[in-house]
Amino acid sequence: MNQKIARFFEEQRPQTPCLVVDLDVVEQNYNDLHDALPDARIFYAVKANPAPEILALLARLGSAFDCASVPEIQMALAAGAPAERISYGNTIKKEADIRRAYELGVRLFAFDSDAELEKLARSAPGARVFCRILTSGEGAEWPLSRKFGCDLKMARALLLKARDLPVEPYGVSFHVGSQQKDLKQWDHAIFQVAQLFRELEVLGVDLGMINLGGGFPTRYRTDVPECTAYGQAIFESLRTHFGNHLPETIVEPGRGMVGNAGVIESEVVLVSRKSDEDPKRWVYLDIGKFSGLAETMDEAIQYPIEVVGEGMDDPDGEAVILAGPTCDSADVLYERAEYRMPSELKAGDRVRIHATGAYTTTYSAVCFNGFAPLQQICI
Amino acid sequence: MNQKIARFFEEQRPQTPCLVVDLDVVEQNYNDLHDALPDARIFYAVKANPAPEILALLARLGSAFDCASVPEIQMALAAGAPAERISYGNTIKKEADIRRAYELGVRLFAFDSDAELEKLARSAPGARVFCRILTSGEGAEWPLSRKFGCDLKMARALLLKARDLPVEPYGVSFHVGSQQKDLKQWDHAIFQVAQLFRELEVLGVDLGMINLGGGFPTRYRTDVPECTAYGQAIFESLRTHFGNHLPETIVEPGRGMVGNAGVIESEVVLVSRKSDEDPKRWVYLDIGKFSGLAETMDEAIQYPIEVVGEGMDDPDGEAVILAGPTCDSADVLYERAEYRMPSELKAGDRVRIHATGAYTTTYSAVCFNGFAPLQQICI
Repeated sequence: MNQKIARFFEEQRPQTPCLVVDLDVVEQNYNDLHDALPDARIFYAVKANPAPEILALLARLGSAFDCASVPEIQMALAAGAPAERISYGNTIKKEADIRRAYELGVRLFAFDSDAELEKLARSAPGARVFCRILTSGEGAEWPLSRKFGCDLKMARALLLKARDLPVEPYGVSFHVGSQQKDLKQWDHAIFQVAQLFRELEVLGVDLGMINLGGGFPTRYRTDVPECTAYGQAIFESLRTHFGNHLPETIVEPGRGMVGNAGVIESEVVLVSRKSDEDPKRWVYLDIGKFSGLAETMDEAIQYPIEVVGEGMDDPDGEAVILAGPTCDSADVLYERAEYRMPSELKAGDRVRIHATGAYTTTYSAVCFNGFAPLQQICI
Repeated sequence: MNQKIARFFEEQRPQTPCLVVDLDVVEQNYNDLHDALPDARIFYAVKANPAPEILALLARLGSAFDCASVPEIQMALAAGAPAERISYGNTIKKEADIRRAYELGVRLFAFDSDAELEKLARSAPGARVFCRILTSGEGAEWPLSRKFGCDLKMARALLLKARDLPVEPYGVSFHVGSQQKDLKQWDHAIFQVAQLFRELEVLGVDLGMINLGGGFPTRYRTDVPECTAYGQAIFESLRTHFGNHLPETIVEPGRGMVGNAGVIESEVVLVSRKSDEDPKRWVYLDIGKFSGLAETMDEAIQYPIEVVGEGMDDPDGEAVILAGPTCDSADVLYERAEYRMPSELKAGDRVRIHATGAYTTTYSAVCFNGFAPLQQICI
C-alpha cells in the first residue's frame, strides 16, 4: 500500500477516475533495476506511460528510451534525453518516419524483415541496426503473438546483408513477452542469440549488442520474482552462453518501471443483481475497458483492487462481477476472476485499482460513450 | 463501393489513417429505417459515431437520440435536438449525472435495477422510466454479455414499485445484440415484453412504450437481411403479441445508421514474412486495434478491405495476416479470417477499410504508442 498516494487521494479528492503516479517509486524501480543489471543500459519503454514527469525523471537519472513512433521520440527529446540515448524500437515504421527520426539524431533502429532493412539503408545511412528474433512468449501474462521478430535463419541472412548496406549490423533483440514470470525464458533466448553471434562472426560480422527487451513484471494479485532474481538469472545466462566475451546489453522495461507506481481511484456507479436469485452482484465502476483498463481483456491482467476503507480483496466479502460504465456489452472487467467485496458496497463508494501505472492512460479511448479519457497526476 | 468517398480520397489524399463519412448515406439509412418502421420513433445511438455533422443532420431529419452519458446529451442538444427527443439510455448512471440530465430537460431514462430506480426517483422526479430486460444475444456478431437488463420477474417488481415513486413507469426495453442477423430474436423478446405488459396491466400499471433497442446490422463481408425485412418481422411480431393495441415503439439504431456510411483509408507500412518458409505474409497497416479498429477483437467484426487500385478481397491474391502499427503484440487485426491480397502489395500502398462509420473514431486510443487518434471527415 503506497501511503503517499493514499494521502494524496484523501487530501485532494480528485474527480474520478484518476490515476496518481508516485515518482519516488519510479526512481526506486530505476535504481533497483540498475543495481540488478549493472552492466545493462536501461531503455525505458515510453509506451508504458509517456507522462512528461516520468520521462523527465528518467532522463535525469540517465535512462535511455525505447520509442515506438516519432511522437514518442519527440517526447523523449522534450524530456531532456539526448538523441544518442534513444532507440526507435518498432520494427514497423513508415519510411518518412525513419527519415524524421534520423533528422532528429536517432541512430539506433530495430528491424525484423528485408523490406524494413532496405528502408533503413535508404533513409538512415550509418545507423546501427538490430534484428529482432521470434520467441514463444511462454509464461507471459499478456499475450505475445508472432507479430514481431523473424526466425534465426532469416535474422542471420538479414544481418549478413546489412554488412553490405550503408548501415551497421549492431545486434540482436528479442522479447520474452510482457509480465514474464518464467526466468528460464531469458536463458532460452540468450542461448539462441549467442549461437547467432558465433555463426555471424564466422561470416565476418561482429555483433556488439544484445537487446534483452522487456517483460519485467509488476506485482498484480500474485507474487512475481524479485528484480534481483531477474538480474542474476540473466547475468548467469550471459556468462554461460557468451563466456568472458560479454556483449553490450540493453533492457527495455516498461511495466517493470512504472506499473507499481500508479493507483487509480474510481467511484462505484451501481451495485445490482440481474434477478432475485442471482448469486453474484454486478459492481459497475466509473472506469472500464475503454477508459484505461484495456489490459483486462480476457481477464489477462488482474489488478489488486481495494475498497477504500475496507481493504484489499476482502476474503469475507461476496463474489462480484466488475464492469465499466459504458453501454458496451464487452465493457466487463472481471467475470471469471474471483473478486470479493463487502456486502454493504454501494454507489458512491470508492475503490482503488493498484499497480495501474503502466498501459492505462494511453490505452484510454478519446471519448467512448462520451466519457473523457483517464486523467493522470504525477506526485 | 461509394463513389463519392472514393473521389474524395483520390482528390484530397488526406493523411492516413482517415475515416471519411458520407452524410448522404446516413440520410438514406434514416429514411430507409423510417420507411421500414413508420410507426417507430428513431433514437440514434450517439455512441456509434457522435460527429457533430452526423448529429446535426439527424436532428434536422427529426431523429431522436439515445445517449450514454451527460457529454453525449450535451452533444445532441448542441446539434439542435430538443431535450424531449433525448433518452438517457445507459442503465448505469451516477446520480449527479441524472440530476444534470434532468436539469438539461431530459425526461426519459433507462434502468434495470432497484438502486438505479431509487436514484431516478430522487433525482429525476416526474420522468418517464423504462426497464431493460435481459436477452440472450444469440445470433449477434458483437458479443452480448449479461451486463445490461434484469430478468422478467425483477422487471415486473421494479415497474410495480415505480408506480409508487415519483416517476412514471413508462415501458420496457431490450437489446438483441449488436449486428443481429437473426430476425427471430426480436420476436422472442417482443413475446416476453407483451406478457409483461399484460401482467402489469392486471396489477394496475399501464405501460405505453416498448423500446426495441438496436442490433440493426451493417453489411460487412457477408450479406445481412434488408432493412425492410427487419421492419416487416418486427411489425408482424408486434401484431401477433399485442393485437390491435400496439404500444408506442422506439428503435435505437447505431451501426445500422452509420456503419456503411464510412470508409477508412490506411497506408501499408510493411509487408513481411517471419521466415523463408512462412506460408502467410504479414501486412502491417497504419491503423490497428488501438487506433479505431477495436471491433476486430477476437475477429468479431470483419470489415471488407479493398486494396486501392486492386479491388476487394482478391480471390487470386495470397493469404495475409493483418496487423496494426503499434509495438503491442495484441495489435493484430485478422489472423484466422481469410483475407487475401495481391502478391505485389508493398509498403506505401493504400487500402480502404469499408463499413467503418460506426464504432471506430470513439474507440480510438488517445495516444497509444504515440499514434494520434483516428481523424474523421464528413462529406
